[in-house]
Amino acid sequence: MKAKSEQEGRSDCPICMALERVGDAWSLLIVRGLMLEGRKSFNELLNAEEGIASNILSDRLRRLETAGIVGKLRDPDDARRYIYRLTEKGIDLAPVLMEMIIWAAKHEKTAAAVSVIRQMTKNRDEFLARIRNQWKLGNR
Amino acid sequence: MKAKSEQEGRSDCPICMALERVGDAWSLLIVRGLMLEGRKSFNELLNAEEGIASNILSDRLRRLETAGIVGKLRDPDDARRYIYRLTEKGIDLAPVLMEMIIWAAKHEKTAAAVSVIRQMTKNRDEFLARIRNQWKLGNR
Repeated sequence: MKAKSEQEGRSDCPICMALERVGDAWSLLIVRGLMLEGRKSFNELLNAEEGIASNILSDRLRRLETAGIVGKLRDPDDARRYIYRLTEKGIDLAPVLMEMIIWAAKHEKTAAAVSVIRQMTKNRDEFLARIRNQWKLGNR
Repeated sequence: MKAKSEQEGRSDCPICMALERVGDAWSLLIVRGLMLEGRKSFNELLNAEEGIASNILSDRLRRLETAGIVGKLRDPDDARRYIYRLTEKGIDLAPVLMEMIIWAAKHEKTAAAVSVIRQMTKNRDEFLARIRNQWKLGNR
């Protein structure tokens, strides 16, 4: 499913639109890295467990930036590097990721701790509020 | 991101696992067709708005079957054809799709009616219960 352009979806269906933005597996794994794993730099994202290739990471970061999901700023400690962070639109993907985690933990063999999943399912709003708070703190 | 095999994920991370199952755009659009649009036959899925190619539809249906997300049975009206339906594991993807709809309706230009999205967001559990009920009725 290719978009006509990166800004213009080929269908008005909201699910199609969401999939055009984050519907390839790598894009959502980058969002996960920024949202849940505290990764901030290109290298930290590159060294995530699944081993994304450097050219794919560049391409997906660029697409996520174009879609307004990820922003970047110069690293204050090293002006040659960038720090990546989720925008408001990006952090709003937290419920999608959370529902994926709950689904996979229920139906597939994963490493997700039963206690964490139970807490996610029961205290959904609290869990999401905590993720959003962490994100806000990181933006200070 | 390729799985070692279709049954075995390459990571224990639940998000990776979810993405291996439904992380390509077509798979989730097939789930959407079965879940929200009342599509049941191969042809009905083939004629969805986005125009999936017939060989891709076959391949994705086979993968969704292997993953236990979609089941099929002979059409009682025409034994040469199959009726496809979501399994329990498949209908459990409803919250993921719903959160994608809410996200896209908030952040992208889509055709989703504001009233429907407002209802989804406010009465999340009720909305999901209705989808599940429809699915149960369809299984009788």
